Amino acid sequence: MLEDGVQEPLGGQVFGRYGTIQSISVVELHVDKNRLKEFEAIFNPRSVAIVGSSSSTRKPGGFATYNFLHCGYNGRVFPINPVEGEIMGVPAYPSVKDVPEPVDYAVIMIPANMVPKAIDECVAKGVKVAQIFTAGFSETGEEEGIQLQRELVARARRGGLRVIGPNCAGISCPLRRIPIPTGATIGQPGDVAFLSQSGGHVQSMLDMGFSRGLRYSKVAAFGNGSDLNVLDFLEYLRDDPETKSIGLYAEGTPDGRQLYRLLAEISRNKPVVFMKGGKTRAGIEAAASHTGSLAGSETVWAAAMKQAGVIEVNSLEEMVDTLMAFQYLPPLRSNRLLFVSQPGGAAGGASVFAADVFSGLGLELPPFTPEVKERLKAVVNSPGSILGNPLDVSMVGRVPESLRQVMSMLSALPDTDLIVVMQRVTFLLQMMAPADVQAINDALISSRQSKPVLLVSQPGGLREVERQAAEKRFVEAGVPVYPSFHRAGMAIANIVRYWQFRNGTGLGD
Amino acid sequence: MLEDGVQEPLGGQVFGRYGTIQSISVVELHVDKNRLKEFEAIFNPRSVAIVGSSSSTRKPGGFATYNFLHCGYNGRVFPINPVEGEIMGVPAYPSVKDVPEPVDYAVIMIPANMVPKAIDECVAKGVKVAQIFTAGFSETGEEEGIQLQRELVARARRGGLRVIGPNCAGISCPLRRIPIPTGATIGQPGDVAFLSQSGGHVQSMLDMGFSRGLRYSKVAAFGNGSDLNVLDFLEYLRDDPETKSIGLYAEGTPDGRQLYRLLAEISRNKPVVFMKGGKTRAGIEAAASHTGSLAGSETVWAAAMKQAGVIEVNSLEEMVDTLMAFQYLPPLRSNRLLFVSQPGGAAGGASVFAADVFSGLGLELPPFTPEVKERLKAVVNSPGSILGNPLDVSMVGRVPESLRQVMSMLSALPDTDLIVVMQRVTFLLQMMAPADVQAINDALISSRQSKPVLLVSQPGGLREVERQAAEKRFVEAGVPVYPSFHRAGMAIANIVRYWQFRNGTGLGD
Repeated sequence: MLEDGVQEPLGGQVFGRYGTIQSISVVELHVDKNRLKEFEAIFNPRSVAIVGSSSSTRKPGGFATYNFLHCGYNGRVFPINPVEGEIMGVPAYPSVKDVPEPVDYAVIMIPANMVPKAIDECVAKGVKVAQIFTAGFSETGEEEGIQLQRELVARARRGGLRVIGPNCAGISCPLRRIPIPTGATIGQPGDVAFLSQSGGHVQSMLDMGFSRGLRYSKVAAFGNGSDLNVLDFLEYLRDDPETKSIGLYAEGTPDGRQLYRLLAEISRNKPVVFMKGGKTRAGIEAAASHTGSLAGSETVWAAAMKQAGVIEVNSLEEMVDTLMAFQYLPPLRSNRLLFVSQPGGAAGGASVFAADVFSGLGLELPPFTPEVKERLKAVVNSPGSILGNPLDVSMVGRVPESLRQVMSMLSALPDTDLIVVMQRVTFLLQMMAPADVQAINDALISSRQSKPVLLVSQPGGLREVERQAAEKRFVEAGVPVYPSFHRAGMAIANIVRYWQFRNGTGLGD
Repeated sequence: MLEDGVQEPLGGQVFGRYGTIQSISVVELHVDKNRLKEFEAIFNPRSVAIVGSSSSTRKPGGFATYNFLHCGYNGRVFPINPVEGEIMGVPAYPSVKDVPEPVDYAVIMIPANMVPKAIDECVAKGVKVAQIFTAGFSETGEEEGIQLQRELVARARRGGLRVIGPNCAGISCPLRRIPIPTGATIGQPGDVAFLSQSGGHVQSMLDMGFSRGLRYSKVAAFGNGSDLNVLDFLEYLRDDPETKSIGLYAEGTPDGRQLYRLLAEISRNKPVVFMKGGKTRAGIEAAASHTGSLAGSETVWAAAMKQAGVIEVNSLEEMVDTLMAFQYLPPLRSNRLLFVSQPGGAAGGASVFAADVFSGLGLELPPFTPEVKERLKAVVNSPGSILGNPLDVSMVGRVPESLRQVMSMLSALPDTDLIVVMQRVTFLLQMMAPADVQAINDALISSRQSKPVLLVSQPGGLREVERQAAEKRFVEAGVPVYPSFHRAGMAIANIVRYWQFRNGTGLGD
């Protein structure tokens, strides 16, 4: 059914189970039940119409139809096409009005000038929500596009139809196997939401999350936000019992004051990780062309976000890293951590570097007491080992039983809340059998019940396949994996800052 | 010959050819010919003895022997072992003194207390350089280790033997297929040197470089630097005609003033990228335990480095990224660049983000003139495209011929020196056949003859194998690939800063 040469999308594939979700206590709030109900049609629709469907998966409407039919979504799918009677083996209809059953949700993927008519038909049919994929509206900055957008919103509102977009990639809900219409990546369901003005960022976040083990509850790209906007989605996510932390990308907002109030309210209960687009002159200009947003002054935003307890990040990588930390780690009570340098040798430089990076980010590596050193010395006693924090167990780290003892000692220490371990699987596999490396890794994971563990594992080298397999095992055991010290350190510092905000203390800047 | 279950090291494997090396003009300097000759025994030895060899590749001495025998090194290899008469099919000798032929270079991998005797035997044999892998010397901070190191250096100097280490991983020279004794990764030879106090960092740099297409001339980890130290190696690399840029990791130096003078001298001719270990209190303590270095004040170092024209970096990732930029890009005359957002759609958010990141790093994205916009409009004319810089060609970017025209126009623009392109192969492969994506990529590469191109390609998602293959094609065509906007931007800003230093202008901070 796919075009020649296009490979099978893998959206339906289950990547494997990831570690258990840490429970984050959620304070009971007033819940807006009407909004929850309204959003049922978005994140749990009984049926979906693809307006602008096609038999070709090279066209957005065809690819979207393929995705809904093959990603495991168990509602009804209705392709809408003016001439085809059947698309990909299911009946197609000339208009959404002709569908013989109720339609909760419509994805509109037709040229901009045809959208208003499609909106009227959705209203006539009683569709609840329409997502408009099509671009060419207010984001063009031209009168024609602005007018067209105003027009379609007016028509939808008169008819009681809610609109997502236009100029947007739409939503995904892994629990209900709902794909982003133009994206086949659906990972395991989880409790992290990501909300974005940009569809490309949603695709990046889905891709990175899929590979790293970040599990989403709800994902949404709202584009121009002509009707349902960032505030509506945030109010929904605030109340959504399936969402425990929220990532947000926005280039601007219709009402900054209200956004601030809402983020401050949510942050008291659920962490919000925020990336702002349009911070520099060049970025502000690009944002205006992208979604027609007028990005405000950066310093005002940043100060407001900090006051609201929102964690502001500067890249999608930091966004994924921070949401990963919220997903995999319990609330951290302090900024104090232990660092174990690569077991098995060649770890001195990494110890120095980790100490520099973590200290530079405001994290502490408290030194061991003489008693702890004595106890460690009884297990770790080889040239090249360094019995400090950073701890370099060197060659002793190749003995799983010794390593298990060390990890057990470390996890019992009362004054630290996290163990960070660095490992280069490439290096270990040069001299050890895979089963031995696995035994070492199991020893590293072993202490996780009493104290959380986080792994730093750098990409590159001769053993990429084995590295990825090893990392997957860590993640599946509940140990999040980061590709560099900087990225691990930033994520840890971010969640420490949030939990200190929640507890009324503070890391400061 | 390998232990059960240990996989074949792949050191001998050739990963593929990478793009042509850009020629960097090198000013003629006074060259220390004696030092060049002395270092011949290190980077081009006719024979190597492994003192502490073993039949087991799980032991460092056995693994080193295996590597020298299988990595393609074409000098003689002599395993030294007190009891074995043959190791891995070649004759072994009880002492280096018993080797029936000349020995240029010895790798010493035996317990610390046996090292002085081995040094005496190297002297007796007339070995030119000994690399001491063994740890347990001055870096322990204990009198015994300090004394032992002093002792072995005295014995070596009396006998005219030069020493690398102790407590060090040693050297690699891809052109002569010389592996780091405990590391099997040898990539294609190139013109980038990396010099490091830490052996772990050398292994990381080899691994990352191998996967990214960074090609080394010489790599060296000098550990405690008891005899040949950072200054000796730098003087050699200054004069080495095979080296055109230098990466350096150091935690401290015996003579900061001399290091400063030397780096300033080298920077006038070859770029030096420097990462300093031991910047924070925690890092300084770790450095003292690691290589016995006393790291100096960070602010003093940083100011001195800047004045000397040295590019200081804060992580190994930034080190690789910056050396990649020196290897693949010609000297850049300005900080002005063009950004082309993902051809094929879903690129608006990336445009905004790229503009923010690059501007934030002091790089400029000059706007197009109205004439250029008109010319672009004749080719790029679809909803969603944004004819600015960042340029979002949107769906037109799926038409290779149009994209080729756009790239050709951009590369002819006189006021910018680099085109940065962002691409998510994952996204494109969802709706396009691999051959079509390849045609797009060829169009992106096409303009490279008239203006350099750099690619940003983010890891993650359903198509990791295809992404890596696509990236490899770019790299082989001379287009360096970076995993994020931040990392690309930092590398570009770093080399711009260097070339402005060389030209007597400056980017400032």
